[in-house]
Formats: sequence, C-alpha cells, structure tokens
Amino acid sequence: MELIRSVRSMQEAALTVKRSARRIALVPTMGALHEGHVALIRAAQNRGAAVVVSIYVNPAQFAPHEDFKQYPRDLDGDLAVCRREGVDVVFAPTDEEMYATDASTWVTESLIAKRLEGERRPHFFRGVCTVVSKLFLICQPDVAVFGQKDYQQWKVIQRMVRDLNFPVEIIAVPTVREPDGLACSSRNRYLDPLERAQATVLYKALLVARDLFNQGEFNAHRLASAMIRAIELAPSARLDYAEVADGETLMPRSEVRRGDVALVAAYIGKTRLIDNLVL
Amino acid sequence: MELIRSVRSMQEAALTVKRSARRIALVPTMGALHEGHVALIRAAQNRGAAVVVSIYVNPAQFAPHEDFKQYPRDLDGDLAVCRREGVDVVFAPTDEEMYATDASTWVTESLIAKRLEGERRPHFFRGVCTVVSKLFLICQPDVAVFGQKDYQQWKVIQRMVRDLNFPVEIIAVPTVREPDGLACSSRNRYLDPLERAQATVLYKALLVARDLFNQGEFNAHRLASAMIRAIELAPSARLDYAEVADGETLMPRSEVRRGDVALVAAYIGKTRLIDNLVL
Repeated sequence: MELIRSVRSMQEAALTVKRSARRIALVPTMGALHEGHVALIRAAQNRGAAVVVSIYVNPAQFAPHEDFKQYPRDLDGDLAVCRREGVDVVFAPTDEEMYATDASTWVTESLIAKRLEGERRPHFFRGVCTVVSKLFLICQPDVAVFGQKDYQQWKVIQRMVRDLNFPVEIIAVPTVREPDGLACSSRNRYLDPLERAQATVLYKALLVARDLFNQGEFNAHRLASAMIRAIELAPSARLDYAEVADGETLMPRSEVRRGDVALVAAYIGKTRLIDNLVL
Repeated sequence: MELIRSVRSMQEAALTVKRSARRIALVPTMGALHEGHVALIRAAQNRGAAVVVSIYVNPAQFAPHEDFKQYPRDLDGDLAVCRREGVDVVFAPTDEEMYATDASTWVTESLIAKRLEGERRPHFFRGVCTVVSKLFLICQPDVAVFGQKDYQQWKVIQRMVRDLNFPVEIIAVPTVREPDGLACSSRNRYLDPLERAQATVLYKALLVARDLFNQGEFNAHRLASAMIRAIELAPSARLDYAEVADGETLMPRSEVRRGDVALVAAYIGKTRLIDNLVL
C-alpha cells in the first residue's frame, strides 16, 4: 500500500494508473475509519479497480463553531485498516497541500443543498462540493463510493457530477449500523456511555416512520410528528429536524410516496447525529 | 477532422486519446472564429498535442439584456477554419447537451472575478468558470489555450485551475490585432464602418497609458484619466471603465508597477468592447 501526501504525486500516480487502462475507485473519507468506511472500501474493490482512500478532514465544510478541531484523527489506525483491507493507495494530504491561503474558487450546488443540512450548516455543502471536486481532479477516479448515511450529501454530489460532467460513476453504499441500530459514524466516538445508549432514538424514530408508512400513513406532517415524538423519548436528545422529503431533490413532501426519504438530525448531549431511511 | 456533438462521445474520444498517452490541447471558443482564435489553435499545435476546439456560445455567461441571441454563429465557417488549420476534433455541443433544465451546480471564483468585468456583468465569471470546468471535464485536456485579450478571464481561470487542482496547464496567447490596432473580437462584426473606424480608441488609450508609464508616470489615477480622455475623443464611444490593476489579482493600484495591467471597456455605439495592455 502506498501512502501519498502531496497533490502532485497523487495526480502523477493517477495518470500512471489511467494510462495502464486500469480503473480507479475513490473512497473519500475524513478518516477515523469505522465499519461504514470498510463497507465503502469493499464496494470499491468489487469494481475490480485500483482503490484510493482519501483521508482528509476538510476545514471548508466546518463552520467556526463546529467540531473541526475535535474531529477524531487517527492516521496510524486508519492506515492499519486500509492495509488490512488491501487498499492500493491512501491519499492523506495536509491542509497546506489542499488549500492555498488565498483560495477563492468554490463549487456550489444550489437546489438539493439548500434545505436540511444546508440550512443548518450554511457552508457545509459548498465545502463538500469543493473538496470532492478537488479530490476527483487529484485522484482521477472512474468510480467514487459514498455512504447512504449522508443521504443529502450523496444526492448533492450526484447532481454536481451530472451538472459539471465529471466522468465519475457515483456508487452509494447502504448505511452500516451497530447491532442496536445506531448508524456507524466517526462522531459516535464523542458519545459517553449514557448518550451512546440513547443515540439509538434516531434510528428508532425512522423505523416508526417506516412502520406508519407501511400501514398506510402518507401524510408527511403526521410522519414527522411521530418521528419527533420518538426522538423526544430520549432525555439527552434535542431535535434538530425530522421530516420526509423527495428522495431525489430533498424537497419537502405533503403526501409521501415510496422512494421518499425520512431524515432526522438530533443532538445527543453535545453530539450532532444524522440518519435517514428510504420509505 | 472529427466533429463531435455529444458530451458522451467527446468524453469517450478524450479517454481514447489519453490511453494512447498522447496529450490533448483544448481551445475553448464561442465560435465566429477570427485571427485571434487561429493564433490560439497554432499555440495548441505547437505543443504537439491532439487539438480540440470547442465551439459553444455559453448562455450561462450572458445576462438577459446581453447579446446571447445576436452573438454571431457560423458553424460552417468555423469548421472550414478548423479544417484548414489541421484541428483534430471540433466539439460543438447543443445547449441541451451542456445544461440540464434543472442544472444547479456552479463554479465561482470570488476574488479576481469580483471587479471590472465581474462588477459590470455579475453572472459572467460564474458562467465562464462553470462552462470551462465542464469543458475541461468533457475534453480532458492536458493544456488549454486562452487569449490575453480576455485578461481578467485568463487570470480567473488560472486561479480556478490552481484552486480546484485541474490537471491542466493554462497557456495565454498575446492579443492579435487588426493592422490599425483594434483587438480581434467576434463582436467586432457588430460595428458599422463609422464605429469600426472609431473602435481603435480603446487600443490608443492603452498606448497612451503605456507611453506615460514608460515616461515615469506611476500614479494610477492619472494614468486612468489619460485613458479616459483618449477614449472620449471618439464621438461614438461611451466609457465603461479604464484603470490600471495588479496583473495577478486585478486589484486596483494607486502606485503602478511593471507587470500591472491597463484595462479598458467601452461601448462603441451599442457594441461593448474590451482591451488591455500589460505595462
């Protein structure tokens, strides 16, 4: 396994692979790798491509008050995971490599990114679209693998790829969950044992919505109310949002259809978690 | 010479060239090819690369009141020029190929693009950055050739390429001028004979500024005033801007240095023309 730290070396390595006619699959991550990431890596390998895992905590997608500084970083642990999984290249650039101090170019998606996470975290998707564009241009993947846990992010990136004509196929891998249903997330490391126990309410709320939908409840407002009540059962939980949206555009729904997606965001203690379930 | 009209065919053709280890040079144009474009094509050929000329009048860089509809279109004439010049591929997509009706992703540069053309034409550089990103991702060039006539555009694109890590080398070709000094531009076709005669004031104003600078006038305000007076000599001319700016960031200067750039924009009748000269 090769560890590459500079943009130039990564671009040269990518060009060499491309000229050999081998495909490249990119798994973009912020490190602190967990079972969810492992599922992404395996999906990339199933494509028979050279697998590049990027590890970069992207400052541009954090607001000043958010957890950029505390975000878990464990390059040695991450490299061990990648080695064990047979990854070909880890691209782990420094901030200096990734952003010039006078960087002034941004990629924005203005429709799918507008609501939900985009409303709560105004610079989030601009940061995501910009860094993913950069990673695509540096690593030159034919395929890139994202987790469905970040559902809105997946849809924003699909739209960006379509609109800008990135020659990259986007694969989304179903959310990997702990045995009790909690979606795997690097931020789960922030939870203390009591919070960890209560963090399952996000998924429980989604299951409530799915059960109601399967029983014939198509009213988006009532489905949202049921999710909110379910989340409020946990004393440590503070709701951010719970709603059902169009599965492609993330626009709000009044009458819910199959393929729509239920999405929740809540603070468990001080940790903000998100989850979703396609109905 | 191959004429390609679809994004997919162009991406496939580019990948084939890339796998053959031959380099690709892109000359992005809006058609209505003139001697300035021919100079770009020849610069591309000098790199020994396969030359792709894109011909696309990009709606995203025109404001509703601007000349998108009237902009000269002459695909047959353009193809004849490209054939004569030994171009390898002409990529001439339709609007439907280039923009989905619900396109929502934009590339913006927020510093160099802010003033001058960006101030007068608020969506211009967003349109330019977005379409150039798309053309880069569709045509996969190793080298792209731009004209120095659009000085600010050149600098915005250089910055964009740096910030987003496009693996593309940007070459800028000096402005090609008519015998009387008027910079070649597709929009010169709008000028009637009287206006055409007066259109030389833009270049004359720039020469005035350069002469004064060479004589030791470093005050940006006085250089701008001299350019304005020179432009006002033409009865058909209406000044838009005339100033000296930092050659890299396009920020305004008070004390002018070598390498700074004098820029003018003026309406000659109803036709808006721009020109520039590095001091």
